[in-house]
Amino acid sequence: MRYGYLGTMRAAPGRRDEVVAILLSGQDGLRAAGCDLYVVGTSDTDPDLVWVQEVWASKEHHQASLQLPETKAAIAKAMPMLTGEFTSQELDIVGGLGLRE
Amino acid sequence: MRYGYLGTMRAAPGRRDEVVAILLSGQDGLRAAGCDLYVVGTSDTDPDLVWVQEVWASKEHHQASLQLPETKAAIAKAMPMLTGEFTSQELDIVGGLGLRE
Repeated sequence: MRYGYLGTMRAAPGRRDEVVAILLSGQDGLRAAGCDLYVVGTSDTDPDLVWVQEVWASKEHHQASLQLPETKAAIAKAMPMLTGEFTSQELDIVGGLGLRE
Repeated sequence: MRYGYLGTMRAAPGRRDEVVAILLSGQDGLRAAGCDLYVVGTSDTDPDLVWVQEVWASKEHHQASLQLPETKAAIAKAMPMLTGEFTSQELDIVGGLGLRE
């Protein structure tokens, strides 16, 4: 089964959109790294929170992607804009509509 | 922006996989109803919980889909297998990899 990762990160007040831009800037290399889905969302109910929904070929593919130079650079760039409050949920992706076959 | 819906539903002990099968059985009609993503996930850390990650053209498309006969039938079929414990989070989908353009 594919590996799902649901995460949130809290931006410092007023920095959310900069964090979102950084996250989206790195998406080109993700497909080649085994990423089938990388969706960034926000919510008016909590304006500093950024949601990321990811689906990878495997947990190992996800772990390996964190070692990519561009991923490391994006994390380093975003970190000063974040409060350090993170949540995460790992999932076994059973199936559904819209995921690359 | 597209509308994201993140939800969980708790199955009665031992009924999770039946609920998952029902959710996946209804996916064919969703695309036509404006659904770009409908992903079902589970987690070993909470064996009765079912996660659904959805992206729709709009909130209205999502709301309207709940009135579809096949959606109503799937909900009615699954309800007896659920405990009634639901969570949901609405999102503005800013962008990312893997979503249908």
